[in-house]
Amino acid sequence: MNSRPPICPALNQWRSRVDAALESRLPPADAAPQKLHAAMRYAVLGGGKRVRPALCYATGMLLDVPLDWLDDAACAVEIIHAYSLVHDDLPAMDDDDLRRGRPTTHRAFDEATAILAGDALQCLAFELLSRPVAGEGPTPAQKMQQVRTLSRACGSWGMAGGQAMDLAASAGRIDEAHLETIHRKKTGALISAAVRLAADLALDEDVPAYQHLDRFAAAMGLVFQIRDDILDITADTATLGKRQGADLAHDKATYPVLLGLDGAQRRGLELHQRAMSELVSFGSAAEPLRTLADELLNRHC
Amino acid sequence: MNSRPPICPALNQWRSRVDAALESRLPPADAAPQKLHAAMRYAVLGGGKRVRPALCYATGMLLDVPLDWLDDAACAVEIIHAYSLVHDDLPAMDDDDLRRGRPTTHRAFDEATAILAGDALQCLAFELLSRPVAGEGPTPAQKMQQVRTLSRACGSWGMAGGQAMDLAASAGRIDEAHLETIHRKKTGALISAAVRLAADLALDEDVPAYQHLDRFAAAMGLVFQIRDDILDITADTATLGKRQGADLAHDKATYPVLLGLDGAQRRGLELHQRAMSELVSFGSAAEPLRTLADELLNRHC
Repeated sequence: MNSRPPICPALNQWRSRVDAALESRLPPADAAPQKLHAAMRYAVLGGGKRVRPALCYATGMLLDVPLDWLDDAACAVEIIHAYSLVHDDLPAMDDDDLRRGRPTTHRAFDEATAILAGDALQCLAFELLSRPVAGEGPTPAQKMQQVRTLSRACGSWGMAGGQAMDLAASAGRIDEAHLETIHRKKTGALISAAVRLAADLALDEDVPAYQHLDRFAAAMGLVFQIRDDILDITADTATLGKRQGADLAHDKATYPVLLGLDGAQRRGLELHQRAMSELVSFGSAAEPLRTLADELLNRHC
Repeated sequence: MNSRPPICPALNQWRSRVDAALESRLPPADAAPQKLHAAMRYAVLGGGKRVRPALCYATGMLLDVPLDWLDDAACAVEIIHAYSLVHDDLPAMDDDDLRRGRPTTHRAFDEATAILAGDALQCLAFELLSRPVAGEGPTPAQKMQQVRTLSRACGSWGMAGGQAMDLAASAGRIDEAHLETIHRKKTGALISAAVRLAADLALDEDVPAYQHLDRFAAAMGLVFQIRDDILDITADTATLGKRQGADLAHDKATYPVLLGLDGAQRRGLELHQRAMSELVSFGSAAEPLRTLADELLNRHC
């Protein structure tokens, strides 16, 4: 089950690139402290759909950013995602035992190591964005903007804040607007960062193209989350690689709980259409991003 | 006990500056998610000697860096320190109940909130270093160097790695060289970062002055840790603001355990002298840094 790749061609085309880039950027497992390094590698290299790197590369293609300029950012956003899963799975948080078809990091190692591995991974993401460029590459100002993009997405106004709000909320007691706020922070902020990290190397924040991409990413973040919520109910544990029905077991508010399965599917479609409308002005250059967005709407894994 | 400032004039002169800067940079407690923001403020604003900001400012004075160029870095390094204490105090790590004369963050709030507050604080530190400069200020290249300095200090090769090695070690089974390696990472890396963050705004990494400051900081990191180890034995809980004898209770390897109290004191003096020798070439401009170093050697709090 571990090595089975998801059946998602648009994602898979980026998978080997980002996996190789991650492999070379993570600390070697034989360097001290070995257990910590092994846990960091376990958390990041154990499969995963690599949605955020794919969005980063596909946005870069649209904007003619050389792909090797994007490897650090693609790794950074995936490493942040991996750290957040390690911490979210901890007993004091969601208390999950299974992730990507394997024991969660605190089960495979121990809680202290999982906490520290998450901490060190967050830090590594920023280290990657700050690496000096040899030869042609992004300017220091562009790289600063990337650090700003990623740090704002991760913190209390973004991903960490969304997880805090998610823990505080329980099913039935929140409405769709509240759920959307949680998901815009918890999942959406990092999905948006994946797109922005590429845009930061080509565009100023205040030009219309940047804002189109930003609204595309915001809509797609919700599409992704809605699909996640639906799969939690309709897919099986082996396909998911995490416990099927975990959201329901945790009494979490989800789109299907609030809107029903059909309602959630309709909402996903609407948001996907909204995302597509933001790509119109880019013409055929946006084709890789469109293909990826279609796959995220319809994915079964 | 909470508000009693340490009797350390060289530290205290920077205290109100960095406390005001931190206050204005932390998320307001009334903004959602309130509990998370309250925990972040609790962790950072609840006292603390502010050793790292003081080292940053004093190094900046030596190098003629305007103090207001240093506020973000001084806050960033203190915020990293605060997050590391929150996570180190967790039940799965050192399981401490008292910190800075108050309940630790997971005791005052809950474990999930403490984990997330630490996570969001780490991220905030990098956000502060990436803030756009209005008017005169550091260049993007200098700020990138600061992000690099801080991120390398925090991760698995630095602070987080040192904590992992500290958890793995137990008293009696390690020698002084191993203990020094742990402390160079766990405490020393961030102390060095405090000095480097100021040097990054004035010097290239490869000039002798940068290297003198770096070796000064490396030696002072150990001086600071040795003094900490001694105070854990000789001071009382009220003065420390954390449980007296916690190191012994945790069966931790410390300098006094390995060298005896007198031996540890002698080692601290030797390292302090080594640190002082690195400042000779700066002449009288290094006076603030010398005063601070003397205070760190002799502090009672």
